[in-house]
Amino acid sequence: MVNKFVYAFEEGDKDQKDLLGGKGANLAEMTRLGLPVPPGFIITTEACRYYLQHGRIPDSLRVQVTMALRRLEDVTGRRLGDAVDPLLVSVRSGAKFSMPGMMDTVLNVGLNDFSVEGLVEASGSERFAWDSYRRLIQMFGKTVLEVDGEAFAQALDDAKEAKGVTSDVELDADDLKGLVETFKAIVEKHTGRGFPQDPREQLDLATEAIFHSWNSDRARLYRRRERIPDDLGTAVNVVTMVFGNLDDRSGTGVCFTRDPATGKTGSYGDYLVNAQGEDVVAGIRNTLSLDDFKKVDPDSHKELRRIMRRLETHYRDLCDIEFTVEKGKLYILQTRVGKRTAAAAFRIATQLVDEQLITMNEALDRVSGEQLALLMFPQFDKSADREVLTRGMAASPGAAVGAVVFDSATAVAWKARGEDVILVRKETNPDDLEGMIAAAGILTSRGGKTSHAAVVARGMGKTAVCGAEQLVVDVTAKEARAGEVTLREGDVISIDGSTGEVFAEALPVVPSPVVQYLEEGIDAAVADADKDTAELVRAVDRLLGHADTVRRMEVRANADTATDADRARRMGAQGIGLCRTEHMFLGPRRELIERVVLADTPDARSAALDALLPLQRDDFVELLTAMDGLPTTIRLLDPPLHEFLPDRAELMVKVALAEERGEDVEHDRKLLAAVNRLHEENPMLGLRGVRLGLTVPGLFALQVRAIAEATAIRLEAGGHPHPEIMVPLVGSLMELHLVGDETEGIVEEVSEAEGVTMSIPIGTMIELPRAALTAFRIAEVAQFFSFGTNDLTQTTWGFSRDDVEAAFFADYLKKGIFTVSPFESLDRDGVGRLVRIAVEDGRRTRPDLTLGICGEHGGDPESIHFFHDVGLDYVSCSPFRVPIARLEAGRAVAEAGEETSISA
Amino acid sequence: MVNKFVYAFEEGDKDQKDLLGGKGANLAEMTRLGLPVPPGFIITTEACRYYLQHGRIPDSLRVQVTMALRRLEDVTGRRLGDAVDPLLVSVRSGAKFSMPGMMDTVLNVGLNDFSVEGLVEASGSERFAWDSYRRLIQMFGKTVLEVDGEAFAQALDDAKEAKGVTSDVELDADDLKGLVETFKAIVEKHTGRGFPQDPREQLDLATEAIFHSWNSDRARLYRRRERIPDDLGTAVNVVTMVFGNLDDRSGTGVCFTRDPATGKTGSYGDYLVNAQGEDVVAGIRNTLSLDDFKKVDPDSHKELRRIMRRLETHYRDLCDIEFTVEKGKLYILQTRVGKRTAAAAFRIATQLVDEQLITMNEALDRVSGEQLALLMFPQFDKSADREVLTRGMAASPGAAVGAVVFDSATAVAWKARGEDVILVRKETNPDDLEGMIAAAGILTSRGGKTSHAAVVARGMGKTAVCGAEQLVVDVTAKEARAGEVTLREGDVISIDGSTGEVFAEALPVVPSPVVQYLEEGIDAAVADADKDTAELVRAVDRLLGHADTVRRMEVRANADTATDADRARRMGAQGIGLCRTEHMFLGPRRELIERVVLADTPDARSAALDALLPLQRDDFVELLTAMDGLPTTIRLLDPPLHEFLPDRAELMVKVALAEERGEDVEHDRKLLAAVNRLHEENPMLGLRGVRLGLTVPGLFALQVRAIAEATAIRLEAGGHPHPEIMVPLVGSLMELHLVGDETEGIVEEVSEAEGVTMSIPIGTMIELPRAALTAFRIAEVAQFFSFGTNDLTQTTWGFSRDDVEAAFFADYLKKGIFTVSPFESLDRDGVGRLVRIAVEDGRRTRPDLTLGICGEHGGDPESIHFFHDVGLDYVSCSPFRVPIARLEAGRAVAEAGEETSISA
Repeated sequence: MVNKFVYAFEEGDKDQKDLLGGKGANLAEMTRLGLPVPPGFIITTEACRYYLQHGRIPDSLRVQVTMALRRLEDVTGRRLGDAVDPLLVSVRSGAKFSMPGMMDTVLNVGLNDFSVEGLVEASGSERFAWDSYRRLIQMFGKTVLEVDGEAFAQALDDAKEAKGVTSDVELDADDLKGLVETFKAIVEKHTGRGFPQDPREQLDLATEAIFHSWNSDRARLYRRRERIPDDLGTAVNVVTMVFGNLDDRSGTGVCFTRDPATGKTGSYGDYLVNAQGEDVVAGIRNTLSLDDFKKVDPDSHKELRRIMRRLETHYRDLCDIEFTVEKGKLYILQTRVGKRTAAAAFRIATQLVDEQLITMNEALDRVSGEQLALLMFPQFDKSADREVLTRGMAASPGAAVGAVVFDSATAVAWKARGEDVILVRKETNPDDLEGMIAAAGILTSRGGKTSHAAVVARGMGKTAVCGAEQLVVDVTAKEARAGEVTLREGDVISIDGSTGEVFAEALPVVPSPVVQYLEEGIDAAVADADKDTAELVRAVDRLLGHADTVRRMEVRANADTATDADRARRMGAQGIGLCRTEHMFLGPRRELIERVVLADTPDARSAALDALLPLQRDDFVELLTAMDGLPTTIRLLDPPLHEFLPDRAELMVKVALAEERGEDVEHDRKLLAAVNRLHEENPMLGLRGVRLGLTVPGLFALQVRAIAEATAIRLEAGGHPHPEIMVPLVGSLMELHLVGDETEGIVEEVSEAEGVTMSIPIGTMIELPRAALTAFRIAEVAQFFSFGTNDLTQTTWGFSRDDVEAAFFADYLKKGIFTVSPFESLDRDGVGRLVRIAVEDGRRTRPDLTLGICGEHGGDPESIHFFHDVGLDYVSCSPFRVPIARLEAGRAVAEAGEETSISA
Repeated sequence: MVNKFVYAFEEGDKDQKDLLGGKGANLAEMTRLGLPVPPGFIITTEACRYYLQHGRIPDSLRVQVTMALRRLEDVTGRRLGDAVDPLLVSVRSGAKFSMPGMMDTVLNVGLNDFSVEGLVEASGSERFAWDSYRRLIQMFGKTVLEVDGEAFAQALDDAKEAKGVTSDVELDADDLKGLVETFKAIVEKHTGRGFPQDPREQLDLATEAIFHSWNSDRARLYRRRERIPDDLGTAVNVVTMVFGNLDDRSGTGVCFTRDPATGKTGSYGDYLVNAQGEDVVAGIRNTLSLDDFKKVDPDSHKELRRIMRRLETHYRDLCDIEFTVEKGKLYILQTRVGKRTAAAAFRIATQLVDEQLITMNEALDRVSGEQLALLMFPQFDKSADREVLTRGMAASPGAAVGAVVFDSATAVAWKARGEDVILVRKETNPDDLEGMIAAAGILTSRGGKTSHAAVVARGMGKTAVCGAEQLVVDVTAKEARAGEVTLREGDVISIDGSTGEVFAEALPVVPSPVVQYLEEGIDAAVADADKDTAELVRAVDRLLGHADTVRRMEVRANADTATDADRARRMGAQGIGLCRTEHMFLGPRRELIERVVLADTPDARSAALDALLPLQRDDFVELLTAMDGLPTTIRLLDPPLHEFLPDRAELMVKVALAEERGEDVEHDRKLLAAVNRLHEENPMLGLRGVRLGLTVPGLFALQVRAIAEATAIRLEAGGHPHPEIMVPLVGSLMELHLVGDETEGIVEEVSEAEGVTMSIPIGTMIELPRAALTAFRIAEVAQFFSFGTNDLTQTTWGFSRDDVEAAFFADYLKKGIFTVSPFESLDRDGVGRLVRIAVEDGRRTRPDLTLGICGEHGGDPESIHFFHDVGLDYVSCSPFRVPIARLEAGRAVAEAGEETSISA
């Protein structure tokens, strides 16, 4: 049996994206719905795969295309190459996933020296027909025959110069006839043969060229980055040409079934009379709104509205539609589920529930934690007058206003005197780090979402717009030009990291209504809000509420102080998953730890530790009060000790200079000796965590005692404290044994002394590969595991998080070695495999083992789904990410397909 | 059915160590052989396990012990507690594994106020009988009844003082009778009841105390360290007492069936007339040789010789035997396979083969790589006159001679002026590092094999003797005393790190005959050797040869230069598993790399790289010439770039001082800027390996070109070069893809340009957990894996190898968290699991994947067995470890039990 390589639109449907590609499947679907799609057919991805494997198209494809063409001629009543009313087709690639780097489109296939006369006849415009022919030769020559495009551009310029005009539209039919001859000569010169006059040959060559382009360098690189398999192949769509630029009863447009910007109901779109698609994009003339379109062409408008309703009901989502009117006849050229803003996503999802089109679970699947995060940033006041200066990539969200500076030093200096600045650079490199830290926002003219600026800004949580290509930055002259406007050092601008917009003025920033809702509740948030905002807040509330109902995983917060803990509770945290006790020793208490470290006798060390006890105890009393009734995981001291000591290199300089000047250096020299003793080449791999606890006598004991005493105080006050003690950086059972034995002893001692009963679970971070690999043993002692995925990522990959700011990391993103930083989103293949091993082995040893995660991945949507799948009990993240984690933990269940009732 | 908890010696055998413990099983075995073992019985480990689980002895044990005792009384014709000729027994613990920390022995059980008179009668010595009784009460009181031993010691001292004597032996029978009363009073005072007069109660209490001591803190700690399961339990041996100290026809001795020091055939041992075991140990009187024993007691001697032959034939190995003669009657008290020196091990193993007692495979199993390593160190000339000053632990092998120094600064200063020094300390800490580096050897008075000094010295390959406890070190006074002798700064001493011996003189050092054999062959090595040495060298040759015959794994060497490669071949390497190209850029070539790193334009970088090409090519031509015909794995540049740059802190000081002095600092300031740019907090986790190759354009390309061109040169010269290119620090398939594509391109280019055909396999180090975890993908591109277990250990555990020298590492060894440094011997549970994952997954993707290991574990015996088990194709280690690896790779097969013929 011969494979079916060609499908008429009538033969496919939207679920056949594997075989027909995304574009083709949607064209087929619309055809099946009876919508006015120009007739056409699809050459399947299977044909492409055959071509890629054998280096030639399958034999039977030729016959199948012949039959499909004959059918097309029958349906349209036109013939390819006809000298009266010729059939013209577009030939477009269409893979399962949208994929830049492949050959895209050849229009007007079917034109030749004869049929161009037919098009003159049929269109009634000689200039139109010859311009169409000229475009075919140029596009075909360039993309299919691989003629250097420069040659055509040069010839076009020559023609304009000869006539003394500057614009293409000033060339008349005769000029274009001449140009066609010139273009044909160019093709002949570069390929050794004439431009193919046979329409069928044009089609076949275009098809092969599209197949061939699947393996272009750019396409391969793109696939590697996006992890798209190399063997999918692309389909080819052959569609009858329709023309929106034939007369004033023709035109072309784009519309949405709801407002993709705000989510408001009602249709939105643009229409351009007597124009083709590319004219809309070029923005030469003003477009009409759909309401104006109705006045111009009420019949077509009415039909379009009908089709929009039909498609939305059918796709059960916002649709984005391209259409063309040819001499009063409406054609739908393409449709897809439309992109939308974060606010629109939430509103549309709940609207569709209310319209009984989708279930609450489906609605949950239509929004994302990333969108919720965008809604939580402060925003520019949309009601303010504003004009976009230029646009770039929305590289790191937020709204930043500040004075333009062009170098790091100025950024630091101006910031120091209290001024907000926006650092503007062509692109950034590690030398700009200090300036980036000082700046309120970062704007670059080059590089995309994976550029150094973008990666570092996201790592810092700093607003950034990158790759604003229309901006010409001249760092030496300290100015940046965008069209007519020149920005100079000190000029105030506003950048929107959520949209990529840049404004040449200070825009007012308003706080996020979603944050107000989270902080103060729904009533406060909708009280003074406008209708759109109120609807948005209600949508967020409904979807978050539904997520809370369905999710299996708990959400805790990482919080080190009572203030953080209060915020975390308001954000919906169900406990603290990580309290970093080292944060209690920053600032003025730093020297207390320094005393412990520098103590040169056991007595001196004991004294230094004793001084810490009441402070630590008070810290924990406050924390346990704030988290009353909820689990509170306290991690014993983790970071390298030298973090509490002066910088070694600076101290060396200080001592050397003081010696040179003959000053007294005794104290500093002693300090330096201690610092040298504790110096490590790789502190991240050094004396940290449990190693510290086992090496510095009394250190962990002090902390455990403070926790136990604080618990006793809270119990005596009638509270419900639930502390859990977490040991960091454990690599082997023995370490936990030793700390565990000591901890149990102290807790018992305090219990007896205070006459209270308390049980404090002891668990460990799993943040070293060895801990994960030997989880089956560690679980003998640990009552809970908390995955420290930051450190686990560091050691599994063997690079430190500081490298995120280093040059090679940006390089790696650019080269596609990472699609996203593994510190942002969990690396499932590597780190994730360790997590899975530890979960399975740990539970085998101790079936009631509690499993959580407290690395930054706890607030990352992608990662949360993984943690759900792998069976963790909770995720813990920073307080502001808690709502995002709640939503995503719910989505993880919804996506698994458990059905809930159609409305909620 | 009632469990059998008691075994008479007649009922067990040597294979029942699980049930009867090691000591008991051997006593039973000897009894079965008909040897004159004093009658006795064993209470099983099962009874102990019951006790540990239920807190009491099993009910049926009492009856079984009663029956066993009755039988013992029947056999010996004596009765417990008898006032005429009483039966006395010793009660000794005996677990499967020898285990310090448990209660050891109670002698003379059965003595009481009546039976002591019987012993007077039977022995004919009143003093002997009362002294035996005094000892029983003291030992029993201390170990079984847990009376503070100090009380007995004090009473003994008081008795001597009252009589005006200083030694125990000066106390007569009456004194001892008085002491017995005093001791009984002490027991009564401390326990509230009298010393148990019922012999049976004495036995039961002693048994329970031994069971109980299984869970003493020391025993538990020991088991944790040695990874001995907690639930084995110990057996209890009850043996009829025999006395070597009754008269001159009595005595006690120890003997060996061959010389455990040299391996010479013939029996060796010591005998002491009229003495008990403890007298031999105390060394009060001079012992007799076995020949002298023959003169004193020809009958007993003759029987002993017969028994020795019997035991050796039976155990098919060197036996170590304890015996006692009681009034002319010989008893065998214990036997076990005897410990021996490295040289003896090799000689005995081959002797036994020649005597048809064992097969060559068994012989291979009787020697070890560690023993071979000891034989490869230079040694003190044994023919020289020498007197041992004191002894410590043999902490790190070798023979070192030098002047005593007591502090690091002096060690460095004296070494600088050309003097060899031995650093003598109580114990060392990280502050002593420089001194340890400068010293020829290290001697400490405290700490064992896991002390800081021992760990660091082994890491450095430096000779060390640790924990020489009789040495009193006074660092302030700069002297060390050992008995009469005082060592002062500058005195020359010799320390033997293979035996732990210390000599107060400069001993002559001789090179190892085994190394001579390896370097020059068997004939050269035996030519001028004495008989012992020649036999040793021949034994090594035979066993190494047999190992080569049976082993499955190949052995390659880590070698960076042609000189190393030559040595590696002589040592038997079958290829180079790791050539570290960065070593080619140390010394004068360092600045060449500095130029590459500091280049601030692409042109400058290219120029700097071009200058390297001819040098690298010459390096590789030499290397491939040396390794002609064998695989040569060349690793592309790996270390952090800053290793080629000046130290940052020092440069900061230099710049600050120069500025202070108003000197010109332009160049240094520029250099500092570059160093700062490349500075990393954790260079081990930074810009290294493949990251370097993908970030510094042209760097890897240069090296690949040099390899390809060198290969072409060798091919044109008629050679057989087999280079393999190894990419370091790969964490993901993509990295290897990118480097692989570039490499293939260059190799093809050079092949075409030179007109030669070459194929150079490309593989990768597996030295990051992620590489192991994603091996199934990496194997798509990699043709071979080489496990870099040094780095893999670093990242799996999350500590750097520099930490081996840090305080916490020694602490960890002391606490038993490590039993051995994971950098010395592969951590099977953690790192080993990653290796296993990578092997299995890699082979699944690519069945013909070549698998090797080039970390330092490649030369470690324990680890080599693991690599064999896991299925690697080769191990690669430093040239001097190659013979060790050959031997152990053979042992790994031999241990698996494949039989070879009885002689070879």
